[in-house]
Amino acid sequence: MSTFKPLDPDFEKRVRDSFARQAFMRALGAELLQIVPGEVHIALPHKPDLTQQHGYFHGGVVATIADTAAGYAALTLFPKGTGVLTTEFKINLLRPAEGERLVARGRVIKPGRTLSICQSDVYAENGERESHVATVLLSMICREGIKD
Amino acid sequence: MSTFKPLDPDFEKRVRDSFARQAFMRALGAELLQIVPGEVHIALPHKPDLTQQHGYFHGGVVATIADTAAGYAALTLFPKGTGVLTTEFKINLLRPAEGERLVARGRVIKPGRTLSICQSDVYAENGERESHVATVLLSMICREGIKD
Amino acid sequence: MSTFKPLDPDFEKRVRDSFARQAFMRALGAELLQIVPGEVHIALPHKPDLTQQHGYFHGGVVATIADTAAGYAALTLFPKGTGVLTTEFKINLLRPAEGERLVARGRVIKPGRTLSICQSDVYAENGERESHVATVLLSMICREGIKD
Amino acid sequence: MSTFKPLDPDFEKRVRDSFARQAFMRALGAELLQIVPGEVHIALPHKPDLTQQHGYFHGGVVATIADTAAGYAALTLFPKGTGVLTTEFKINLLRPAEGERLVARGRVIKPGRTLSICQSDVYAENGERESHVATVLLSMICREGIKD
Repeated sequence: MSTFKPLDPDFEKRVRDSFARQAFMRALGAELLQIVPGEVHIALPHKPDLTQQHGYFHGGVVATIADTAAGYAALTLFPKGTGVLTTEFKINLLRPAEGERLVARGRVIKPGRTLSICQSDVYAENGERESHVATVLLSMICREGIKD
Repeated sequence: MSTFKPLDPDFEKRVRDSFARQAFMRALGAELLQIVPGEVHIALPHKPDLTQQHGYFHGGVVATIADTAAGYAALTLFPKGTGVLTTEFKINLLRPAEGERLVARGRVIKPGRTLSICQSDVYAENGERESHVATVLLSMICREGIKD
Repeated sequence: MSTFKPLDPDFEKRVRDSFARQAFMRALGAELLQIVPGEVHIALPHKPDLTQQHGYFHGGVVATIADTAAGYAALTLFPKGTGVLTTEFKINLLRPAEGERLVARGRVIKPGRTLSICQSDVYAENGERESHVATVLLSMICREGIKD
Repeated sequence: MSTFKPLDPDFEKRVRDSFARQAFMRALGAELLQIVPGEVHIALPHKPDLTQQHGYFHGGVVATIADTAAGYAALTLFPKGTGVLTTEFKINLLRPAEGERLVARGRVIKPGRTLSICQSDVYAENGERESHVATVLLSMICREGIKD
């Protein structure tokens, strides 16, 4: 499905290793679902700790996994020896994030040597039903000298 | 300093009660610092659980407290019996969020009956030094029939 | 293709009439290409007046037709007697906007009684080739008492 | 007022020359008001050509001068032999842009070798009164090999 060619054949291991070092991902309980060139999916099962005052997933939680999925989508296309940093993102919260699990699907829209533009969509799963809870546009910068 | 007149004289209690019901704020360890009409500050002490792969505060954490501070800044100006939801925000991450504590200062730029536009700035504190790590623009919607 | 049901059967005429009243669209030379429920396309032929200092279409021009296409996409789903205003948008400029014609395709992602969230993608056409020059997320508000 | 030190002492001439080459600025009727290191102001007198369907300045016009003011604010701090491109921006339209003249004040929030983060605020003037019609966050990239 993906038409992107990774510069680093070890892109999957690199994403898994970096993800494993993210203490915040562990604290949230997030899991990597899929890693292909230019696209990474992350899941986050519901727990009461992740909610805001109305009982929904906190918007910051939704933003966090959207950001992480997109960052790793960008990283799959970066050359060895570089790391990824988010420079900015914009999120539209479409519906209350209510469900058993959130899934963020991050993908690269426009790869670049310096900046890669990504989009993430976040879905809340309730049994068989899935609702689209957020869409996010993000800019990722490729940095030498930081390790991911 | 503030020139906003709150419609609900109990705005401070309302913010404190709502904040206390946010499980995610508790899980992060966030604290309310200041609540005045149109402006709310939130602090978040560092802990290893909040970091990304390079050891900085995760961008999602930065976004979360920026969002929460701005949401409550908007809520201070809402009439009794209404609640606040974030409809969208945009964050620029200016520097790595490295420090002993993050502070988010959310304020209302343009109050409105339906939409209130807010800005949050997030600072990382290191001893006496403070660095500006993020600036955020946000839209908050006032909803009847949800309780905050 | 569209799964949206318009509340106002005259949605197409409404968009055409409103577009005809937009002096700025006329000044730019923009044309309506397609109007279906929840989706509107606008084209803008190149002219030297529309360029920035490097000879590309100005980013503000790209933003303008993206905004207008999305606003009218939202309007196709609004009830009679209401108007549309943009409350905010975020644009990522993906490539220099160079070509004979720009085409903006605006569509509704999430319709709502108050806010409709839209996405616009802008393409530059060069002969048979089309390049994706911008992607935009927008919030449109439905207002009674203004006429579109 | 400005605490920025320009790398190129001819920053003002560079901005004026580049502005003069922007055909779209001429077509709109925009004027440079102020150029100091890290901050540029642009004015745009009202004319009927610049309006949308309700008679206000078109949101795209507001975005255009906000973008241009911020781009030149960034350029004042760039080294000789480089040019500026907008990579993304987010605009919140706070009030209808109604008045005799628009003024956009763009300033650098965080300068950088690659990316400079800027903010623009746009005001509509009516006689002595000024209303804040938009606030904008923007990312500007410094490019070698393009001339500004």
